[in-house]
Amino acid sequence: MEDKIKFMTAALAEAKKAYDRDEIPVGAVIVRNGKIIARGYNIKEEKKDTTKHAEIIAIQKASKKIDAWRLNECEMYVTLEPCAMCAGALIQSRIKKLYIGTMDPKTGACGSVLNLLTDYKFNHKVDVEYLIMQEECEKILKDFFRKLRQKK
Amino acid sequence: MEDKIKFMTAALAEAKKAYDRDEIPVGAVIVRNGKIIARGYNIKEEKKDTTKHAEIIAIQKASKKIDAWRLNECEMYVTLEPCAMCAGALIQSRIKKLYIGTMDPKTGACGSVLNLLTDYKFNHKVDVEYLIMQEECEKILKDFFRKLRQKK
Repeated sequence: MEDKIKFMTAALAEAKKAYDRDEIPVGAVIVRNGKIIARGYNIKEEKKDTTKHAEIIAIQKASKKIDAWRLNECEMYVTLEPCAMCAGALIQSRIKKLYIGTMDPKTGACGSVLNLLTDYKFNHKVDVEYLIMQEECEKILKDFFRKLRQKK
Repeated sequence: MEDKIKFMTAALAEAKKAYDRDEIPVGAVIVRNGKIIARGYNIKEEKKDTTKHAEIIAIQKASKKIDAWRLNECEMYVTLEPCAMCAGALIQSRIKKLYIGTMDPKTGACGSVLNLLTDYKFNHKVDVEYLIMQEECEKILKDFFRKLRQKK
């Protein structure tokens, strides 16, 4: 299987964990030297903590794993376009490349509302590739919001 | 003492804790109903975790304190203009107002490089007031970088 598909599939498996806990289903993995070193899924409602997005959790775990805040040899796969907080964290962590599943037109800060990763004079730019397994990444979100509406 | 001065003084006391640990001296406090409910200072190098900025720590503590991720009745005082990650976290947490000590021309995302708090169509805008105790907030940073240069 192509690497991109393999790693986005792993990110989707994380999103499924969020889905099963009634959290907005977003998942992320961080890859270094061809291996997944950290995984995360959104758990904001359960933790009552707005910083508990999949990307922030994965970044924290990756830093713990390699004992460094600099993740310059790492790449992230995330099922949904990161918000400004998470895009900012990717810049801060010096992550090399980001692979995005599907876009978030309302809050996405990697190309939708704005593009923090490439369009500003910060001290680091993050390479980005879009629409990896877009259909699957969008489907889990649509399923989630349908389920939510039915509950109400 | 005027409230703004009182609370920025408290944020500066947090910055001093970072200074004493050889961390870039940035401090933040979160205020609700006229009382400080959370404090934080930058501890990124010691924790080897790029998310350990003063603002993120204060937001996490405030959410724990009031048992909710929504901080819509809260205000933050921070000694240095937040980066994109922290500005994004302020939007995510729905914080009502931000008081900034001094500006960060290179990475500040609340008016310097860009203004995430007010200039984009996110679902929340954060009110912001600038240059509270600017001299003192700038001095501790200058002192820190002077000390750093002397060490090298």
